[in-house]
Amino acid sequence: MTRQPEPVVTAEELEDYILREFSQAFKDGKVYHIEDLGPGFLTLRLDTNDTHLRPGGTVSGPTLFTLADLAAYYAIMAHIGLKGLSVTTSIHLDFMRKAAPGPLYATCTLLKLGKRLVVTSVAIRDKEDELIAQGSLTYSIPPRD
Amino acid sequence: MTRQPEPVVTAEELEDYILREFSQAFKDGKVYHIEDLGPGFLTLRLDTNDTHLRPGGTVSGPTLFTLADLAAYYAIMAHIGLKGLSVTTSIHLDFMRKAAPGPLYATCTLLKLGKRLVVTSVAIRDKEDELIAQGSLTYSIPPRD
Amino acid sequence: MTRQPEPVVTAEELEDYILREFSQAFKDGKVYHIEDLGPGFLTLRLDTNDTHLRPGGTVSGPTLFTLADLAAYYAIMAHIGLKGLSVTTSIHLDFMRKAAPGPLYATCTLLKLGKRLVVTSVAIRDKEDELIAQGSLTYSIPPRD
Amino acid sequence: MTRQPEPVVTAEELEDYILREFSQAFKDGKVYHIEDLGPGFLTLRLDTNDTHLRPGGTVSGPTLFTLADLAAYYAIMAHIGLKGLSVTTSIHLDFMRKAAPGPLYATCTLLKLGKRLVVTSVAIRDKEDELIAQGSLTYSIPPRD
Repeated sequence: MTRQPEPVVTAEELEDYILREFSQAFKDGKVYHIEDLGPGFLTLRLDTNDTHLRPGGTVSGPTLFTLADLAAYYAIMAHIGLKGLSVTTSIHLDFMRKAAPGPLYATCTLLKLGKRLVVTSVAIRDKEDELIAQGSLTYSIPPRD
Repeated sequence: MTRQPEPVVTAEELEDYILREFSQAFKDGKVYHIEDLGPGFLTLRLDTNDTHLRPGGTVSGPTLFTLADLAAYYAIMAHIGLKGLSVTTSIHLDFMRKAAPGPLYATCTLLKLGKRLVVTSVAIRDKEDELIAQGSLTYSIPPRD
Repeated sequence: MTRQPEPVVTAEELEDYILREFSQAFKDGKVYHIEDLGPGFLTLRLDTNDTHLRPGGTVSGPTLFTLADLAAYYAIMAHIGLKGLSVTTSIHLDFMRKAAPGPLYATCTLLKLGKRLVVTSVAIRDKEDELIAQGSLTYSIPPRD
Repeated sequence: MTRQPEPVVTAEELEDYILREFSQAFKDGKVYHIEDLGPGFLTLRLDTNDTHLRPGGTVSGPTLFTLADLAAYYAIMAHIGLKGLSVTTSIHLDFMRKAAPGPLYATCTLLKLGKRLVVTSVAIRDKEDELIAQGSLTYSIPPRD
């Protein structure tokens, strides 16, 4: 079986770096937290608030795309280092269930960590562990040393 | 060739309805405008501002997903009526080029307007008509009368 | 966590049904075999032969799409009964590695078994358990009793 | 607007090359024909026969994936030269309507012809010009001179 790559930074180092460099991601408060980090994966938690809901009180589509993208972005940085330069080249997401307000957990798994392209799988679950959305996201990354 | 469905509301009626019902979409100002509406398609313009940029000054991925989703949402409402209940079931987007600050134009074409599912194609272009992103989004819609 | 649906037929019943009804799928010999079947999943094995290779001796893209589609088709029938009427509405597959000749294993997991739509995830691995391709496939199914 | 790349070979040169190098693609007879070729696009015609149908007499999913993949493969070769080395890295297809037996026309448009990656859009239509399937396919290509 494929050996999973090891993270090269800790969750704390990554959170610090992102707070510093991506302050605009936190204009609505610090709503994203790294929940777990291990070989080849990272789980990002979103504490949803009213800005994340659509009429009817369920979590909006853009909130879920953004969470998936951010989880993948964090996961890639955790495994290639704090560079902040990867660019989304493709996103595919299927939505299985509406999400009620409350924490959401996006787990990103690195399927292929190539020299130029990273292919990831992301699953978003709610606090009952129900699957809300699942898909794949691909990123181009700067050449590594 | 497939005949395209006719819109059932005008661009003005749709803009009014959305301003009234989806005020949270406009928390950062009125940045979305219907640019064009015709049989089977709608073009939505986004006037990007600083909240839409990522480090490096290019338009962020979440801004582009959100624009594509909103263009499709508007296009469906324009063709099925002002109901506001369609739900994204799947999104696929490929990103071709980085987008600089400035207006972006998302044209959504209805590929299949079924009783329950609507399949759409969305292309996002910049003001030089360069293709920034393209993909397909699918929605489930409430039963129509 | 989401409870997985139970299969409603055995692997043997399903193999017999498919041999009988889909004889054209076996024009190149019986190359597909159910390897495993359980709550919410099915693994289909393909024993590749020369007709499945492209120049260079690796397994062709169409072979992999077909295997993914067939694994999902089998998995759905195993869980809704022997009806043979589900129709692919969407396929998304990312290809991670080239596959050498030899057996391939496609595991389909049912992500959502709705009344009308079934969303599945499929992963294709080789005999070393390396991930070759992964993606999601959606099917519309006939109304169930 | 984006200028479209010019083809570097003729349709005849491409047909000859493919017949010579990919004879296994024609084990069921010469069913694929280049219908049109121009700057940034190629249309491939498939004359379906019984091997392309599924129970019920409609064209099978694998036939449509294969046609889309082949149209993109031809289109890329027409624009980068006769190298035969591009590899599918991702496929996304939505299926809009069932296709009856008869000719199908797959038009592939090159959305981005990069140094390493080519992003394409493919639309499959029947002889009444009805849209059967549409999607995007991405390929990695060998470095060009």
